[in-house]
Amino acid sequence: MIREKLYRDPVHDLISLDKNSREDRCIMQLIDTPQMQRLRRIRQLGLASLSFQGAEHSRFTHSLGVMWIATRILGQLAKEWPISQMQATAVRCAALLHDVGHGPFSHIFEVFLGMSHETWTRRIILSAGSEVHRVLRAFSPDLPRKVAGIIEGQGTPPFLSQIISSQLDADRFDYLLRDSAMTGVKYGVFDFERLLKVLRLDPRGKRIVVSQNGIHPVEKYLQARYHMYSQVYQHKTVRAAETMLALTLRRATEVSGESAQESLASNRCLARLLTKGDRIPLPDYLGLTDEVVLGALDDWRTATDPVLRDLATRLLERRLFKTIDVSQVRGLKAKLGAAKAEISRLGVDPRYYLALDESGSVAYRPYDSSGVESGRHIMVEAKAFPGAYADIHDLSEVVAGLSRAACTTRRIAFPEKLSGTNLRERMTRIFLG
Amino acid sequence: MIREKLYRDPVHDLISLDKNSREDRCIMQLIDTPQMQRLRRIRQLGLASLSFQGAEHSRFTHSLGVMWIATRILGQLAKEWPISQMQATAVRCAALLHDVGHGPFSHIFEVFLGMSHETWTRRIILSAGSEVHRVLRAFSPDLPRKVAGIIEGQGTPPFLSQIISSQLDADRFDYLLRDSAMTGVKYGVFDFERLLKVLRLDPRGKRIVVSQNGIHPVEKYLQARYHMYSQVYQHKTVRAAETMLALTLRRATEVSGESAQESLASNRCLARLLTKGDRIPLPDYLGLTDEVVLGALDDWRTATDPVLRDLATRLLERRLFKTIDVSQVRGLKAKLGAAKAEISRLGVDPRYYLALDESGSVAYRPYDSSGVESGRHIMVEAKAFPGAYADIHDLSEVVAGLSRAACTTRRIAFPEKLSGTNLRERMTRIFLG
Amino acid sequence: MIREKLYRDPVHDLISLDKNSREDRCIMQLIDTPQMQRLRRIRQLGLASLSFQGAEHSRFTHSLGVMWIATRILGQLAKEWPISQMQATAVRCAALLHDVGHGPFSHIFEVFLGMSHETWTRRIILSAGSEVHRVLRAFSPDLPRKVAGIIEGQGTPPFLSQIISSQLDADRFDYLLRDSAMTGVKYGVFDFERLLKVLRLDPRGKRIVVSQNGIHPVEKYLQARYHMYSQVYQHKTVRAAETMLALTLRRATEVSGESAQESLASNRCLARLLTKGDRIPLPDYLGLTDEVVLGALDDWRTATDPVLRDLATRLLERRLFKTIDVSQVRGLKAKLGAAKAEISRLGVDPRYYLALDESGSVAYRPYDSSGVESGRHIMVEAKAFPGAYADIHDLSEVVAGLSRAACTTRRIAFPEKLSGTNLRERMTRIFLG
Amino acid sequence: MIREKLYRDPVHDLISLDKNSREDRCIMQLIDTPQMQRLRRIRQLGLASLSFQGAEHSRFTHSLGVMWIATRILGQLAKEWPISQMQATAVRCAALLHDVGHGPFSHIFEVFLGMSHETWTRRIILSAGSEVHRVLRAFSPDLPRKVAGIIEGQGTPPFLSQIISSQLDADRFDYLLRDSAMTGVKYGVFDFERLLKVLRLDPRGKRIVVSQNGIHPVEKYLQARYHMYSQVYQHKTVRAAETMLALTLRRATEVSGESAQESLASNRCLARLLTKGDRIPLPDYLGLTDEVVLGALDDWRTATDPVLRDLATRLLERRLFKTIDVSQVRGLKAKLGAAKAEISRLGVDPRYYLALDESGSVAYRPYDSSGVESGRHIMVEAKAFPGAYADIHDLSEVVAGLSRAACTTRRIAFPEKLSGTNLRERMTRIFLG
Repeated sequence: MIREKLYRDPVHDLISLDKNSREDRCIMQLIDTPQMQRLRRIRQLGLASLSFQGAEHSRFTHSLGVMWIATRILGQLAKEWPISQMQATAVRCAALLHDVGHGPFSHIFEVFLGMSHETWTRRIILSAGSEVHRVLRAFSPDLPRKVAGIIEGQGTPPFLSQIISSQLDADRFDYLLRDSAMTGVKYGVFDFERLLKVLRLDPRGKRIVVSQNGIHPVEKYLQARYHMYSQVYQHKTVRAAETMLALTLRRATEVSGESAQESLASNRCLARLLTKGDRIPLPDYLGLTDEVVLGALDDWRTATDPVLRDLATRLLERRLFKTIDVSQVRGLKAKLGAAKAEISRLGVDPRYYLALDESGSVAYRPYDSSGVESGRHIMVEAKAFPGAYADIHDLSEVVAGLSRAACTTRRIAFPEKLSGTNLRERMTRIFLG
Repeated sequence: MIREKLYRDPVHDLISLDKNSREDRCIMQLIDTPQMQRLRRIRQLGLASLSFQGAEHSRFTHSLGVMWIATRILGQLAKEWPISQMQATAVRCAALLHDVGHGPFSHIFEVFLGMSHETWTRRIILSAGSEVHRVLRAFSPDLPRKVAGIIEGQGTPPFLSQIISSQLDADRFDYLLRDSAMTGVKYGVFDFERLLKVLRLDPRGKRIVVSQNGIHPVEKYLQARYHMYSQVYQHKTVRAAETMLALTLRRATEVSGESAQESLASNRCLARLLTKGDRIPLPDYLGLTDEVVLGALDDWRTATDPVLRDLATRLLERRLFKTIDVSQVRGLKAKLGAAKAEISRLGVDPRYYLALDESGSVAYRPYDSSGVESGRHIMVEAKAFPGAYADIHDLSEVVAGLSRAACTTRRIAFPEKLSGTNLRERMTRIFLG
Repeated sequence: MIREKLYRDPVHDLISLDKNSREDRCIMQLIDTPQMQRLRRIRQLGLASLSFQGAEHSRFTHSLGVMWIATRILGQLAKEWPISQMQATAVRCAALLHDVGHGPFSHIFEVFLGMSHETWTRRIILSAGSEVHRVLRAFSPDLPRKVAGIIEGQGTPPFLSQIISSQLDADRFDYLLRDSAMTGVKYGVFDFERLLKVLRLDPRGKRIVVSQNGIHPVEKYLQARYHMYSQVYQHKTVRAAETMLALTLRRATEVSGESAQESLASNRCLARLLTKGDRIPLPDYLGLTDEVVLGALDDWRTATDPVLRDLATRLLERRLFKTIDVSQVRGLKAKLGAAKAEISRLGVDPRYYLALDESGSVAYRPYDSSGVESGRHIMVEAKAFPGAYADIHDLSEVVAGLSRAACTTRRIAFPEKLSGTNLRERMTRIFLG
Repeated sequence: MIREKLYRDPVHDLISLDKNSREDRCIMQLIDTPQMQRLRRIRQLGLASLSFQGAEHSRFTHSLGVMWIATRILGQLAKEWPISQMQATAVRCAALLHDVGHGPFSHIFEVFLGMSHETWTRRIILSAGSEVHRVLRAFSPDLPRKVAGIIEGQGTPPFLSQIISSQLDADRFDYLLRDSAMTGVKYGVFDFERLLKVLRLDPRGKRIVVSQNGIHPVEKYLQARYHMYSQVYQHKTVRAAETMLALTLRRATEVSGESAQESLASNRCLARLLTKGDRIPLPDYLGLTDEVVLGALDDWRTATDPVLRDLATRLLERRLFKTIDVSQVRGLKAKLGAAKAEISRLGVDPRYYLALDESGSVAYRPYDSSGVESGRHIMVEAKAFPGAYADIHDLSEVVAGLSRAACTTRRIAFPEKLSGTNLRERMTRIFLG
């Protein structure tokens, strides 16, 4: 009898799991763990919804999508090459769990804690106490270790990890499609079904490669990536809001240290984070969600510390810092000094009201130092020589053009007005004038 | 010079406002008020994302959508009938603000507080202290009163209110399209562009009516509504989660009353709500968002009260109550008594572990007691007699069929397991056996 | 090695066939037969593009789509029930070939020839001379007979035929989706993926039924069908054009008979058709395509017969007959007599300038005389009694409403102007006045 | 009273014209002329449907789409700059009529006749006898001349012509969107609504330029163009079929000349074309449609000339020539000689069985010799210097990459088998071996 669990998805339509299959039941149990359910409360794009109001989707829906795409990729590769049931299950679990260690406003928190989300992911998968661990181990004692290995890029053969993380992986495929649909930035759409059809394993069954007729689908996909980076992920308003959140958290930690008597976070987990940093225990870390941080921002609107109060209020009321692109500015160091002095003169601490923000947009960067097996390259079957491969960068002027367009953007961020002064004018004069 | 502010939207693509227009600048300023920004933190469909994981969109994006659709409807009606700039602006502001008074998990809170969101909306628009009020008044001293009147159904002529609230209004148009796109339940899609083209004003310029060739687009729209109600809004899992939240809040209030010394909510606003109910001041009400309630649930996982602790934990970990449809069950009262006794025997309070949930699905209900001008009817121009109108219910067997399909669903909700007992079996025996 | 043939399709995206599979190669060879290729030159919706300009798609693309959907249905049913490779291949071939016997402007030609397209389809499949026959027989000597049997409703078990022709078949699924996309009438879209998931075989493996949770997807599908019938297939302008074509062909045959010396069709095949009717040999029948008929119309613009010349010119220049809906008119026979007399008075033959057109719109018609196994019913699994089924008509008020909305429309069609007289006025007076 | 004529379109949804507007009524009358209606019988992509079966759309639907997009562009430009009613009407008529002179299988016929479709377009617009001319002149005596001028690039100011023909014109916008939707090649989709928003007039109101925030939408559009050229318009199978049609027509003309007694085309217009070439009168030219040519091919399957018979049969049964890409082959001339000799040895005339096909793929080619006002450049407002413009090629590495990817492809085409010999092997040996 057919017994299916259907997950409706705005991007993939129907994601279906088979209740009669032991493997699929394992996936369903993982989805229902508190650790996975927690991802419902962490937005995929963090503060980007301040600029793209539709971008309200969570890491939870993304994670289901990655699992689904990984399942599709496994199906494609298995047409040519035997993939064991256990390998496939491990990859699908890894796809589902790859983001389980993310904190709220991910990258800001990582910098703030000095600890990557991958570390927390590993802990969640390997800690005997977590439901995630228990579900995996109940399926097979080896599974937690295998899944962690795949996420960390140690899958054997390498393609098991490449399905999760490479230039052509389920994570990127899902987030480009999803972020594009939710932001309404249509540029990020690419033809996933067509792209899927050109994925192959190399003749030794180790790496994911692209069939010789696959250049166009890959070009289209890299163009989509380029547009999403330049239009959304690096959007100046999004970056300004993220900068402000980082500054606010920094201030909160400092104030926490100064006045131990005054608890700055009514939320227990956040309070520990502000005092203990990355030494907080796993259960407290798991208590951190977007709402906890936003709740604290709300509290801080009435904090006694004026800087903390001001930054939190500006962020919540969407009075965001302005930015100036200084990528081409010479003598930046000296000018930053002058800007700080100017701000100090207004009686405020420039550490909280002036920030330099660097962000890199990369559509595709060939030939880095890592080996070919890392999945950092997109290798295409050569027409003339069976078994030989070339980097797509060398085969396509279009991809080469995208690579040249990639660059690091440097911006300074600061409030438009400060102490009654129009700061934008002054900063423009200093940096561009 | 063209100066546009573009809002990208996953449903309407580009929503554009003209920075050169005083009217549009007023709309932009309203969007940026803290009261409107707060709606970003209240999900449109509350707990429905537990069943439809994509349904993570907020009342904020919906409100922008309603404003945009109202603008489109005004454009259509103005082809035939002069609509003043001031009327149009009042309607567009009303469309944007119609949900501004919503609390988190709207309907649950309304029942809980015994106070409708409309009351809060009115306060926000008319309170001299709110930014919303200030923006409206700055545009025109009369505007706050006019906007409140339109939202409350007192617009003159009536069509001004009907654009916001009637059987064919911008609110329903946007939420059907948006909820359908986000849940992935495609049944809710209808042809908005075609429907728009058949909207008219009656010959006296008072009511919105449908042109004689408009029956099919309206049928399609009512079918979409029918499907969204039966598939999403009345979904048993969604309703079960909402029931659980209501029970949890009820328990929290009671415990709050019992032990005044123990504050049950670390969040200031929620704490006041639990003790003061609907007498909380506006600023505290505005502090209530989804995250505050979810944060409290998280706190309550470690509450000393065992019932509160249990309910909160079940909800957050998505171990939702099971339901049995008892719409057709006779002798319901006696059976409910038996069920309560059974639960009491397990040593727990049945008030928190057994609930009766009634929900009404209405695709279109003609001929209620209210007058025709209320907008509760969809009137279609008669072919034969110019100036005469008929209710679509009488013109379309399809709509009549939808009306007959509408019904009230009654369900009981209870935990699958309680004190180690399989409650589902016992309840099935009592109610269906 | 993966070797796929991909057919890009505006409705189904990628239709893929596996060059390594003997079964799929048989399908590919059928696609390339002259009989299938001929369908490229016969439009799916005949003259409907005169009203819906996008409806320019051919029976060829539709046939590929039906084959693809049949493959998907087979995949769904095979989850529960073993379906042999040979059964599946026969069904897929039948799906691909089900329309191969269609002539241009199908239904008009069928009436005109007094011969159904099914008869020609059978001939093409069973004639030793046709490439279609040769390809099928080369795969298996039995295959031509099996395929013909399935198309004719004689498949064993019955579900083999039901996949091609029933209330829930691949033919309807594809044409609703495709016609909807091409005409731009969005009402015809339904959620095929969801509908597919609720198809089942009954416990004896004979009939296609719907699982108990399948009522909503089926309702949606029947609503789509209702809208496509009332909006497109029965559109008055489309019907008027078809009526004109029928009248033109009738006149051409008559003139052909009168003056044997004058060949009325420069095209050899059409010339034989006009003189021999349904006794034309298969190769001549296969020479008939839309372009042949349109080419003849073009020739007839300069015909010596004034009626033929007039009708052909009107049709090609899109000066279409006007229609009056007389479904509710009493005493129709007498009024038709009066109308004919009126037209005769203008000096023209009323047989060519007045037509009565009846068309039936059926969303779903339950309980006809045919047995349940005919696939004329949509049977849904009963919740309470496993193994029992009920007609959806009895389970759904929505479907019942659609059935009641179905009706026969009767229209008269006539030229707006004739011999300088405004005929519309006169006809309106006779029939409605 | 609202009186709209709605044209449903698979690409633009609803195209609406206002029956109350004299300008729109003129457009509607043009649509109904026989010259425009004839375009229904000429496919937009000619033989491309042999490879992309969905590509069955006609120049008629495309022409309506171009008119609609031109209307949208006029609306955008008119936000900043006054455009007179007469200018707008002339542009919209020009957009609708820009393809009216196309023959069947356009480019093949142009080469064959040695006469461009623009010449015929001009005749149709300016000939006193054509309905198109009469409709235009009835609106305004000047209009035919103005419309012809705009189509020929002589519009004053230049932007009137640029709307119809430039790097950013309504023609390209529509055909990319439409061909992409119909072929199912999704790469051709771009964000038209976003692109529209960045179009401007330069400060003198002469040229169409792009606003400074418009680089990304233009990049996306040029990428779409690149993909449609490389995937569809230059597809090797499409080009092979076109080559075969050209060879067949050449043979038909030659045979026509040889044996005047034997008429090679039963169709009167085609017969005149084969004997008179570009000296055929306009009414005969207008009688040429796809169906006439395909009908002739069908006749030629039984022609006495063996070459004509063979080529026509191959084409209709889709046994298309194979191709070898010889873009990189050196000594091509000598090799072509060898290939011809080889084919002659098989006893057939190499002029009909070997062809060299050159096709250029151009995404965007900057800085050609024509002046800036020709619309051959895409000029973007410079950020720093108001009123200054730069070519997008210099601003975007992405566009530069696309330009470098553009190239001329050279292929030879020949039958796979000829006189029982495997020609593919032999040709591969000669050209690549």
